[in-house]
Parts: sequence; structure tokens; C-alpha cells
Amino acid sequence: MRVGIVGVGLIGGSLGLALRRFGGADAVVGVVPTPEEGQQAQKLGAVDAWSVTPEILAGCELVVLATPVEVILPALERALPHLDPEATVTDVGSIKATICREAQRLLAPTGQPFVGGHPMAGSEKGGVEEADPYLFQHAVYVLCPPADHPRRAEGVARVRQLVAAVGAEAVELDPEEHDGLVAAVSHLPHLVAAALVLSLENRPSPWTDRLAAGGFRDTTRIASGNPRLWREILLGNRAAVLEQVASFRRALARLAQALEQTDGEGLEGLLAVAARRRAQVTANARGLLAPHPEVIVRVPDQVGAIHRVTGILADAGINLADIEILRVREGEGGSLRLALESEADRDRACRLLEAAGYWARSR
Amino acid sequence: MRVGIVGVGLIGGSLGLALRRFGGADAVVGVVPTPEEGQQAQKLGAVDAWSVTPEILAGCELVVLATPVEVILPALERALPHLDPEATVTDVGSIKATICREAQRLLAPTGQPFVGGHPMAGSEKGGVEEADPYLFQHAVYVLCPPADHPRRAEGVARVRQLVAAVGAEAVELDPEEHDGLVAAVSHLPHLVAAALVLSLENRPSPWTDRLAAGGFRDTTRIASGNPRLWREILLGNRAAVLEQVASFRRALARLAQALEQTDGEGLEGLLAVAARRRAQVTANARGLLAPHPEVIVRVPDQVGAIHRVTGILADAGINLADIEILRVREGEGGSLRLALESEADRDRACRLLEAAGYWARSR
Repeated sequence: MRVGIVGVGLIGGSLGLALRRFGGADAVVGVVPTPEEGQQAQKLGAVDAWSVTPEILAGCELVVLATPVEVILPALERALPHLDPEATVTDVGSIKATICREAQRLLAPTGQPFVGGHPMAGSEKGGVEEADPYLFQHAVYVLCPPADHPRRAEGVARVRQLVAAVGAEAVELDPEEHDGLVAAVSHLPHLVAAALVLSLENRPSPWTDRLAAGGFRDTTRIASGNPRLWREILLGNRAAVLEQVASFRRALARLAQALEQTDGEGLEGLLAVAARRRAQVTANARGLLAPHPEVIVRVPDQVGAIHRVTGILADAGINLADIEILRVREGEGGSLRLALESEADRDRACRLLEAAGYWARSR
Repeated sequence: MRVGIVGVGLIGGSLGLALRRFGGADAVVGVVPTPEEGQQAQKLGAVDAWSVTPEILAGCELVVLATPVEVILPALERALPHLDPEATVTDVGSIKATICREAQRLLAPTGQPFVGGHPMAGSEKGGVEEADPYLFQHAVYVLCPPADHPRRAEGVARVRQLVAAVGAEAVELDPEEHDGLVAAVSHLPHLVAAALVLSLENRPSPWTDRLAAGGFRDTTRIASGNPRLWREILLGNRAAVLEQVASFRRALARLAQALEQTDGEGLEGLLAVAARRRAQVTANARGLLAPHPEVIVRVPDQVGAIHRVTGILADAGINLADIEILRVREGEGGSLRLALESEADRDRACRLLEAAGYWARSR
């Protein structure tokens, strides 16, 4: 399969790198806005060849529109005269209903199928220099195939080949359902995080920021996202996001009302429902990744302290699925959270660390 | 200084461990609800002696009330007949105005000063078995001394001695100001996180949870907190939290209105203000810890892969301030974020990793 990628930034570049490294494409060609970006993409190994014009897409069985969301349709219009009649077209935009409808309309005269796509992976940084062949490993990759198209099966098969090649998991959804779900789990949280930050304005104390500990920082992390990018995403999914804002306002009103009425039972009940539902989301969201058994181990802050802990595991052939310093205490050490791949590994790791004199505990 | 700790759980136990390990107290005694908890606290090294009754507090120059917030005042009432006339009393509750006022009232007849305290550190887990002598290292520790008390200076000095001994940084605030600030940076985020989880109820799709990626999980993490504990905290700071809910609603209304009116400029402007303010909070919140220079390095998923990276740094005498796996890809490797203690260390680490064949980049 020859694959054309229009826009070789973080997502397009990562697709190219993954396809070229793990197979799934005979050749990957890129359409880029400037020769500099083309040279960079080729140097990093994201494409076999590139061009600043879409003629290079001739002969591609799959064309991936990987530009920012607001220029996906213009990019398709420019590419249209150069598309192979056999080509399937897909995109990577984070909203789907408008794009799928309009793209299918643009492709109607020539009969190519448009299979919308949304890989649920990314990074806070953009640009091909951040591209990563592993970006999509085990990520959910939403596909929105046309409901009724003579070449639907062929189109879906090609995009699924791409999804499998980059290590993601394909999930077929109706574009409207996709947009409603991302409004709930991605777009509303972004608005809420921004509102939380803005809500500080009534506390102009010099101490506000010093007291903003882990909870505030977690809750508002995504408010750091690119405002220009998020403007387009939110406007592109306006109706669904506003619907979700309404649902959120109802939920907040129930909590605030319980608090206002000093209804402790009611408040605790709502908080308990939220805590249980949150645990369920986490468990389900891990998807292919089962929750990892974990070990907490305390380490002194010395050069090589973490290295000694990882060495005990490496020597025993135990792989680390994740590692995290739970509390950073400069000059004073901290606790490490180690995620292991099995309960047997966890128990072994715990025993080995304790035998080496560490405070270690399974959880 | 002889220190008495009433309630030897996560916070009280961590204070005891730190005082006994790092000095700052000649003796630490604990008041616990059951003999089992006393034995456990002593075995872990959190106290020199314990009792299930407050007589043991006789002779303590500093008494720390470290029970759950709703039983701090009852604990003080029980302790009152046994307090040394010279004692200073403090607490570790996460709300301060009511506690400081009522505690000072209870202590008025005997003239001991009450210096409210709130160490801004914790863990999602409770109990003395989770206690950690490093818990307070570099944490902000709010003190709320009485505005006007003949023994104010003596009381503040004793509590500051505790704060310094456990490695935290004392910040003196008026109790009302403290409560307003924690309403903004801690209590409101908790309500909002719960409301975000509850707002999913209008999207009962089997795919909701699978699409809930990092943004949703970050934003709602604190909604997992103990509902019973949070009920008491929120009710205890009701007025300030409701005021903060109102500020949040105004901010969300501005964002939602810009979206509703398809006002792209306005929406982007608000998102940009939030992104800048968020960056400021993070920078200021790090407090004593300057932002660490970082290196991103890609590693394959092999037994010992992280160990090889940490070994390159350890061999060069470079200390790791933090380490994080940015994306976990079981069987496929990922990227490590390494935080170093200086820009010189960062640059050296980057060069050494690249020389060893790794993709590494400063940031």
C-alpha cells in the first residue's frame, strides 16, 4: 500500500515513522507547506519522498489528511484533482461530523470513500521534530466510515490496515456519536480547566499560587493547551460542547445546592457516586492495558539511588512498565512508584527490594 | 521540646517520624484511639510513647491535633484538662477560621496560645502505615497565629520549630485568607472534578470510558478522594467554597458565551489568558524548588532499558530530580522525562545519552 500524508507534523509525522518502521506501507509520501518541512520530515524518516504540491499523491491507495482541523477540508479540495480514482481518503481531525459530511460530498463526483479517523493520542508539543513512531501504540483510534457507500468495505479495510500497522486499536463510531463523546471527555474538560484558572481572579493574594498544590495542578493541566488550536476544536464541535456544558452545570448545581443547604448526606452521596464512576472510567480507559500491579519503594536522594533500584529489577529480569517519583524532595529522597507487568513480578520485586534493605510495599 | 501528637495517622505519624529522625523534639508522645494503633505507631518509629488517654500530654511544650478535621475541637476539649499550662497547641486541619476561633476560645481560661497549622502535603492514602518522614519536605506549611495573644510569639516560635524540623516552609496567613485561598485552589477543584465525572451521565455510551484519555483523567483525578473526608472539608469551609463556585460559574459563563456566540476571537482570548495564568501558577507553586531543567529520551521496552539510561547518569555523577515515563507502551517502549538539578547537568545528560545512541532532547 502506498500512503500519502498531507501535513507531516506531530500526528502525520508519527504515522509516517510508524508505517515506515513497522511496515504496513510500501511507500510513504508527504505533502508539506515548505521545502524545509519536507527535508526535515525526510531526514527524520517520516516520509520516503515529499512535495509542496499534491501531485505526489497520484498512485496512493490511502491518503491521510493530517493538517490542523480547520484546514482539513481545504487540503482535500486542493488534493482532489490529483487523487487516484482507487484511493481511500481519511483524516486525523479531533471532530468528525462536519468533516465526514463535507469530505464525502467533495469526493462524491469521483466515488472515493472517506473514512474519518481520530487517533486518541497526542502530545502537548507539535511539529514533526516531536513525531514518535510509538505515539499510537495501544491508543484508541476512532474510525467513522460512511454509513452507506459502495466502496465502504474497501475503505475501512485500508484505514484499518493503517491503524493496525501503527499499533492502535480501531473503534468504529458514528461521527455524531464521536463528537458527543469527545465533547464530554475532552472538550468540556478543557473549558472547565480554563474556567478553574480564570476563577482565581477573585483571590488576588500573593499566596494563591504557592498554595496551589497537586489537586489544582492536575485539574488545570490541560488549560495550558494551544488557545488557537482549541478555539477551532471547540467551535468545530460547538453544539455538542454546549450540550455538555449544560450537563456539567446541572451536576455542579446539585453539588453546590447540597453544600448551600448544609446537606451533608446529599453532598457525600454525590461525591461517592463521582468517586465510584471515576474509578470505573480509569479501569475501562486503560483498555488493552490491564492495570499494572505496583510497588512503592522509598529511596534516599543520592546520585544513582534510582539506578540502584532499577538495577535490582533489571538483574532479576523484571521489566518496568512504569516508574514515577511520588514526591520530589530535593536533597531528601522520595518514594518511587514502580509498575510491574504481573503480580508475580510485583511480589518478586518487593521481596528483592526488601532483601536489599529498602522499605517497599505492594499495592 | 517535648511534642504530643493527638491522632497518629498519615499526617500525625509523618510528623512524628520526621521529628524523631531529623531532631527538633526531645520526645514525641502520641494519643491514639486504640492500643493497636499505638503499638503500630511505636513500631514504625512515629512515637516514643503512646496512650489511649490524653494524660500523656502532660509536660508537652507543643501539642499537635492531627485528627480528621471534624474531631479536632472535640479532641482539644478532651485534652484540655491534661495540657501543661506552658503548652502551645496547634492542629493540621485543612480549614482554619472556625477551628482557630473555637480553639482559642477553649484555651482562653488557661491562656495557652493556639497557632493553627495546615501542612500542604498529603497522600491519597491514610493511616500511620503510610506515614513518611519526608512528607513535608519543601511543602508549604500555613500557620495561623492568634492576631492578638500575650503568648503569640512563644507559640509561633514553637510551631515554627516543628515546621523547620520536618523540612517545610512556614507561611503565616490570617485564617480567613487561608480558607479563601484553599477554597479556590483545593476545594472548588474538588467539586468541579466531581461535577465533570457526574456530567458524563448524559453520554451513556459503552465507548465513553475508552475515549476518556489523559485530559479527562488528569482533570478528574481528585474526584477519587474520600467522600466522607471531603464532605467535612467542604461543609467546614462552606461560605468560601460557595463564593468560589460563584467565581467559577462567572468564568465558565464567559467561555460558554463566547462559544455560543461563535465568537472565535473572544474564546481564543479567554483560553490564552487561562493558559498564561496556568503557567504562572505552576512557576510560582514550585516554591523552593526551581523548575527543573528536563531531558526527554526515548527508550525501547526491554528489561533493563530504564536502568541503562539511569546508569549513564549515575556513572557521570548526575542526580535525577525526577523521572517519568511519558507514554507507556507495553511491549513497545516509550519516552522518559528526566528532570535534572541544573542546566549544566541537563546538557551533560543530553550529550551522554546521545553519545550512547539514544534520541534525547533538552526542554
